[in-house]
Amino acid sequence: MASVEFCLSVFLLILGHCAAKYEPTWDSIDSRPLPPWFDQAKFGIFIHWGIFSVPSFGSEWFWNYWHDKRPEYVDFMKRNYPPDFTYQDFAPHFTAEFFDPKEWTDIFSASGAKYIVLTTKHHEGFTLWGSKNSWNWNAVDVGPKRDLVSELSDTLRKNSDLRLGLYHSLFEWYNPLFLLDKANYYNTSYFPSSKTLPELYELVMKYKPEVLWSDGDGDAPDKYWNSTGFLAWLYNDSPVRDTVVTNDRWGFGSICKHGGYYTCSDRYQPGHLLKHKWENCMTIDTKSWGYRRNAALKDYLSTQQLLSTLVETVSCGGNLLMNIGPTHDGRISPIFEERLRQVGQWLKVNGEGIYNSSAWRAQNDSVTPNIWYTCKPQEKTVFAFLLQWPDSGSVILTEPVPTEGQTKVELLGYGALKWESVKPSGLKVLLPSLTLNQMPCLWAWTLKITGAA
Amino acid sequence: MASVEFCLSVFLLILGHCAAKYEPTWDSIDSRPLPPWFDQAKFGIFIHWGIFSVPSFGSEWFWNYWHDKRPEYVDFMKRNYPPDFTYQDFAPHFTAEFFDPKEWTDIFSASGAKYIVLTTKHHEGFTLWGSKNSWNWNAVDVGPKRDLVSELSDTLRKNSDLRLGLYHSLFEWYNPLFLLDKANYYNTSYFPSSKTLPELYELVMKYKPEVLWSDGDGDAPDKYWNSTGFLAWLYNDSPVRDTVVTNDRWGFGSICKHGGYYTCSDRYQPGHLLKHKWENCMTIDTKSWGYRRNAALKDYLSTQQLLSTLVETVSCGGNLLMNIGPTHDGRISPIFEERLRQVGQWLKVNGEGIYNSSAWRAQNDSVTPNIWYTCKPQEKTVFAFLLQWPDSGSVILTEPVPTEGQTKVELLGYGALKWESVKPSGLKVLLPSLTLNQMPCLWAWTLKITGAA
Amino acid sequence: MASVEFCLSVFLLILGHCAAKYEPTWDSIDSRPLPPWFDQAKFGIFIHWGIFSVPSFGSEWFWNYWHDKRPEYVDFMKRNYPPDFTYQDFAPHFTAEFFDPKEWTDIFSASGAKYIVLTTKHHEGFTLWGSKNSWNWNAVDVGPKRDLVSELSDTLRKNSDLRLGLYHSLFEWYNPLFLLDKANYYNTSYFPSSKTLPELYELVMKYKPEVLWSDGDGDAPDKYWNSTGFLAWLYNDSPVRDTVVTNDRWGFGSICKHGGYYTCSDRYQPGHLLKHKWENCMTIDTKSWGYRRNAALKDYLSTQQLLSTLVETVSCGGNLLMNIGPTHDGRISPIFEERLRQVGQWLKVNGEGIYNSSAWRAQNDSVTPNIWYTCKPQEKTVFAFLLQWPDSGSVILTEPVPTEGQTKVELLGYGALKWESVKPSGLKVLLPSLTLNQMPCLWAWTLKITGAA
Amino acid sequence: MASVEFCLSVFLLILGHCAAKYEPTWDSIDSRPLPPWFDQAKFGIFIHWGIFSVPSFGSEWFWNYWHDKRPEYVDFMKRNYPPDFTYQDFAPHFTAEFFDPKEWTDIFSASGAKYIVLTTKHHEGFTLWGSKNSWNWNAVDVGPKRDLVSELSDTLRKNSDLRLGLYHSLFEWYNPLFLLDKANYYNTSYFPSSKTLPELYELVMKYKPEVLWSDGDGDAPDKYWNSTGFLAWLYNDSPVRDTVVTNDRWGFGSICKHGGYYTCSDRYQPGHLLKHKWENCMTIDTKSWGYRRNAALKDYLSTQQLLSTLVETVSCGGNLLMNIGPTHDGRISPIFEERLRQVGQWLKVNGEGIYNSSAWRAQNDSVTPNIWYTCKPQEKTVFAFLLQWPDSGSVILTEPVPTEGQTKVELLGYGALKWESVKPSGLKVLLPSLTLNQMPCLWAWTLKITGAA
Repeated sequence: MASVEFCLSVFLLILGHCAAKYEPTWDSIDSRPLPPWFDQAKFGIFIHWGIFSVPSFGSEWFWNYWHDKRPEYVDFMKRNYPPDFTYQDFAPHFTAEFFDPKEWTDIFSASGAKYIVLTTKHHEGFTLWGSKNSWNWNAVDVGPKRDLVSELSDTLRKNSDLRLGLYHSLFEWYNPLFLLDKANYYNTSYFPSSKTLPELYELVMKYKPEVLWSDGDGDAPDKYWNSTGFLAWLYNDSPVRDTVVTNDRWGFGSICKHGGYYTCSDRYQPGHLLKHKWENCMTIDTKSWGYRRNAALKDYLSTQQLLSTLVETVSCGGNLLMNIGPTHDGRISPIFEERLRQVGQWLKVNGEGIYNSSAWRAQNDSVTPNIWYTCKPQEKTVFAFLLQWPDSGSVILTEPVPTEGQTKVELLGYGALKWESVKPSGLKVLLPSLTLNQMPCLWAWTLKITGAA
Repeated sequence: MASVEFCLSVFLLILGHCAAKYEPTWDSIDSRPLPPWFDQAKFGIFIHWGIFSVPSFGSEWFWNYWHDKRPEYVDFMKRNYPPDFTYQDFAPHFTAEFFDPKEWTDIFSASGAKYIVLTTKHHEGFTLWGSKNSWNWNAVDVGPKRDLVSELSDTLRKNSDLRLGLYHSLFEWYNPLFLLDKANYYNTSYFPSSKTLPELYELVMKYKPEVLWSDGDGDAPDKYWNSTGFLAWLYNDSPVRDTVVTNDRWGFGSICKHGGYYTCSDRYQPGHLLKHKWENCMTIDTKSWGYRRNAALKDYLSTQQLLSTLVETVSCGGNLLMNIGPTHDGRISPIFEERLRQVGQWLKVNGEGIYNSSAWRAQNDSVTPNIWYTCKPQEKTVFAFLLQWPDSGSVILTEPVPTEGQTKVELLGYGALKWESVKPSGLKVLLPSLTLNQMPCLWAWTLKITGAA
Repeated sequence: MASVEFCLSVFLLILGHCAAKYEPTWDSIDSRPLPPWFDQAKFGIFIHWGIFSVPSFGSEWFWNYWHDKRPEYVDFMKRNYPPDFTYQDFAPHFTAEFFDPKEWTDIFSASGAKYIVLTTKHHEGFTLWGSKNSWNWNAVDVGPKRDLVSELSDTLRKNSDLRLGLYHSLFEWYNPLFLLDKANYYNTSYFPSSKTLPELYELVMKYKPEVLWSDGDGDAPDKYWNSTGFLAWLYNDSPVRDTVVTNDRWGFGSICKHGGYYTCSDRYQPGHLLKHKWENCMTIDTKSWGYRRNAALKDYLSTQQLLSTLVETVSCGGNLLMNIGPTHDGRISPIFEERLRQVGQWLKVNGEGIYNSSAWRAQNDSVTPNIWYTCKPQEKTVFAFLLQWPDSGSVILTEPVPTEGQTKVELLGYGALKWESVKPSGLKVLLPSLTLNQMPCLWAWTLKITGAA
Repeated sequence: MASVEFCLSVFLLILGHCAAKYEPTWDSIDSRPLPPWFDQAKFGIFIHWGIFSVPSFGSEWFWNYWHDKRPEYVDFMKRNYPPDFTYQDFAPHFTAEFFDPKEWTDIFSASGAKYIVLTTKHHEGFTLWGSKNSWNWNAVDVGPKRDLVSELSDTLRKNSDLRLGLYHSLFEWYNPLFLLDKANYYNTSYFPSSKTLPELYELVMKYKPEVLWSDGDGDAPDKYWNSTGFLAWLYNDSPVRDTVVTNDRWGFGSICKHGGYYTCSDRYQPGHLLKHKWENCMTIDTKSWGYRRNAALKDYLSTQQLLSTLVETVSCGGNLLMNIGPTHDGRISPIFEERLRQVGQWLKVNGEGIYNSSAWRAQNDSVTPNIWYTCKPQEKTVFAFLLQWPDSGSVILTEPVPTEGQTKVELLGYGALKWESVKPSGLKVLLPSLTLNQMPCLWAWTLKITGAA
């Protein structure tokens, strides 16, 4: 006999389904509240991996740039390959023999990220899982001969609290069915019906992602992609309907306007607060999302730069999605590992001001440069991030309104600090004189202010 | 203003369409008369070429036999390839760098064949042309990077009178959409709708074959393949509707029963006359249709054996489709070339009794062994093929009924022979004593008998 | 205590050594009598196998022709390989996975040959055995990873009576030590001392060849190669001193003049009797010694042509060394197999006039064309080879002087024939009227004449 | 007519040769004074590059470990390569397509190193230059098809003041001539005479290295290698006789005893002053000298650790030779670049205490831990390196004996510091309170003390 609890839960489930049916229109889709975990997470890791990781030269847009005859790509191919070599011929060399999802998970965990987003299929159309609709152009049939999506998602869930996000490109540069539809001005839909949509459904059903990161509409309208239809299913009926988050790249014109959270552009950094939840996706190698063998040290952002970006992004209400490009043989190169682990060390000390925080009324200090704010309203706490440690021994925070005897200031990782009110507003915080050993961290410092307005 | 001729031709065109509409039923499809060129042609060349030409070991069923763990295939792979090598990994090695369609056409012409049949897609699913529906699993995207069907068909038409035939396998062993439909007991049709049918239509529209050689139903019924629908279009509306010929492999149970001419089984040789037009497809390498590197000389049929088969087949009303397997780099190996050219030399002398001939009332001589007959009723001529040259200096033909003073006997390539009537019936033909130089050919000899009944 | 027999054998050994010491001078070397087996053997098979079997394009001189920028070689490389591909890069593709020495031995035996000569090292310098002096440029270290010389020689000896011959090129086109010596006008000998000579000694000691087929002096004098020194050792002290045969390619100017038997030039066919034993080395593929993928049927000599060459060569006192080129993966292609087996079929019938025969006083008939003679003096037998079967029913042999009642004529494979004397000399042999079946062979016919002068 | 200057220089040259003839004995060789540049240089970069960079797995001893069947190597090969793959088969994959000697030179210069040492030939025997004595097993014939030694040395000299050092392994694991000599208990010398010695002479004559870093005697005595003979030539007659430096690995038992400077063992760190000049060769990746794809971040020494090693080594009179392993495609991975550039940043500030310095009477402080000393006697200067910054605001240096009014203390990169004498000896230096920005460097700090004893 079923328990009362069970009956109740079934009832609530049914009720839920009835109550919250989304329609396949943007008005309805856009009305869905963002599942709260996403805004709380703040920091994720983007992973660009695919056939482009084989040439690992120039960019993950290698195929397109070569096809469009950019000289450095044409030269690279001419110098190193037989004359009739095609991009498809790279596929068998995508070997992934060093791919160890446990190792990846350990690094991701150590970075302090709360979610990852893996390119399950980029514009090249190659799927990292054994898609039925991408026969012989997927990682199970050629190259690694492994279901990379499955291995990573299983290991991630078993060994961490990180949430799984899956990147998926709607269009494919050179898929002949897409090109056919395009030539037909998108009045035919051979491509979405036989490739895009079956694969999207399969990805959701099989891997149950909590971020579905859509990209690449190929200038085709959302009607062609049947985006609202798919999203209505995703929000109403899919197994992840309660927690899944999506972005805004669902057809020509939808970016920064429809869908889930906004991405607006790559490396989006508005510099001010947005009303709609957004995400800044950027990459440690400043010149590419995919792994580039021809990347020099100077092309990698320093930990200092990465943390500045994180702080600014979170202060303005965004999440940061920081990208790495694994190698064709499945490694996260040590320079990426170092950056990620150092961000993680910083977050261990300063995470209190990042995770679960909200944008404050001021994003940055209007007087003292390089200071950004977040807050936790329920705890009546404001966090001020100092991107530089002042040589003067003190820093003036203009935005918070302190109250003598009530306001307290703490340097995260260190302890309470003295402060004094300043005119016309704000407070002057006295910083301790610390040696390198004594510093709570090396790159950005957090002042936690309670009891201020 | 349009000319009278133009109007007339449009009228006839419309009339033609109205008059001869085939319905998508077997009754209707089967009622179509066979275009006459096919029965007149008698001799064609079958060409098995594909990814299986890369391992070129054992059989063109390599993938299937390996997959089913036949020990010699498993061992071959274990000995020569890395452990995770897949059949798909052979594709880049299908290079065709020596493929010269002009050279092939010359050899085919020299063989005396009147048509060829090329495997545009075998059960492996790899298409020798750049099919839109087989992205990255076709000869334009990987391997040769050439449209092999187009190159061969263009060259053939420009340089010879041979007719083009295209082999096409309905099913594909490991296409996941086919396997999905199969798991659904063929109640879904993802596979035919997104792969088989679009490709069949494209093949016909693009290459205008005059033989469409269907194969491999995968035990699925013709309904699943929509075979009658396709054939109705092929016979009514396709650009080759007037001359195209098809065979009988269009779905489970259709073989030897429905469609165009019958093939019944590989190496079909009934030994007696069939009412329905049929074709004996057989292969010079007795053990494989695809090229086998591990074929020894003894595995190849001799020219003697090939001509015996040709004669027997034609006598029983069939066509002979003699198969060769080109190499992965595009060559017809000299042993195949030698066989084909020798058949051609024989046909130059003896073709009169083969091409445009009909089966006679007797197929072979009921008394004297190794003698087969054809005839040309309009010319009141019977041809008797002697597979062996009698040591006795004469041969008795029991079947023809001679008339003294009217019946004439000629040895093709030599001239008139003397004969005498024999009891109870037939005639005794006196053969000349010829040295090797004087012999019209080396393998089978044709007696042309006119004025007999 | 040693037995008398043992002492005796030691004594004879010492005596042998003392008695027959050859000096390292041409006079002395040239004075050695040819071991009789070689002249009796008449027919051998030459095998060109090496890295050149990988491109298997154009010629076994591929490297040299490409290096010298012959357009077809440059184009072939440009079309099919990356820009910096070198000849050495072909080595890993010399796989020999189908090499079955037993199969080879069976074919060689079936051909009727009495010895083989294998290219253990051609001008490319790559050794087919694991030479210590050719590290990483030999078949054990790269490519097949097998000692091909050892496998073939062991199998040959275990399974046949064929004698083993080893081809060895003195010079190597691009060996830097040879080029250095050459630049020093052969006044230094880095190359012979560290490569050529150690390898020659190793070949003899390890594989005990009975033919040592020297080639390629690179225009360097025999002094540079220390040829007479090596030959003195070979003839005096080597394990094969009693039976080994060598040829005449031992340094600039030695060809057709010094050493063992003469080869004079490739495809040497003097057309008349030579006083010195010689060998005609020629190749079935008229355009190459190594396997060529781009060989068409017309490039292969027919069995008819091969047998004509054999007969003419033997009649003039030569041996025939007929060349085949195995493939990179170790196969003897069926066209070669067919030629060899047909030669073998012919020799089974006609070998009596070939093996152990001598050149007669007349090599060919001075009146009737296409007739060649050999003889066996001890048996008082003359053999006349008819390259064509006369249509007239008889043939006139002008050279033999018959004696009525004593002279007998036999057609090998058939039996006794009638003959009549003719004026001014010779005899007219009456040939039987035979059908194809009754012919003892298809290509050349042997009349065995006993009791004539 | 020759000028006086010319005559004089010729005279001096002759004199030089006469005066300083070294004998081929250890006594004589060991008596040569070390060219002063080497001790002044202090810091060099070791570069391990070769075929082992292709598997780039485990160690540069890959071949040996695999050959000796270490399970992880056997497994790696079994998992990823065909069964008959040999180490030699890696050679074609040593492509170096990203090798840019200018980029390397820039990084080396930025590191503050004064010399580099490149593995021109490791125990595998593969030469990075086109050695005549290593045909087809060198970087010009296979793999890169470039003379890597030449490219790097030319570029280095044109673009920097770094001196060129060449590493050379005497023995080769699997060279059959070495194995032959070994089997003969080194009573034969096929290997040194045809490989080692010609190559050593060629290296010196062609590339004029100023460090010749010998390694790998294979347990063979120096007599076998003719080491003293070679060194006598190197010191007397070679083009680099005036500046060349060698180490101590010249035959069994010579290490730490004969030759030039001592290396004693890999990662040699005596911890106290040695009388003989020595070098500590160590590697940034703690587990391998060659590039390892399977190296995680934790396997790389931090900049902190590297600088501690540098300071300790120099304080004890040694040079530091810090190793990196470039990739098979010619890149210095960013993690190595980062380490090298950070060492260079440190040396820009602190190099005054390193370059041209001498070991002081005390190597490290006997009371305060983590302090190491160097000195410049002519400048009456002592340098104290603080590996940690004291939290107390001051540090006590026990070893220097200060004189009030005369002794001055300076923090390199900052300026003068106050100090006070302490009992029983030494001085207490007062350190400034500096923020991160104000610190002259991040890892180790140098106090320059003048006017102390």
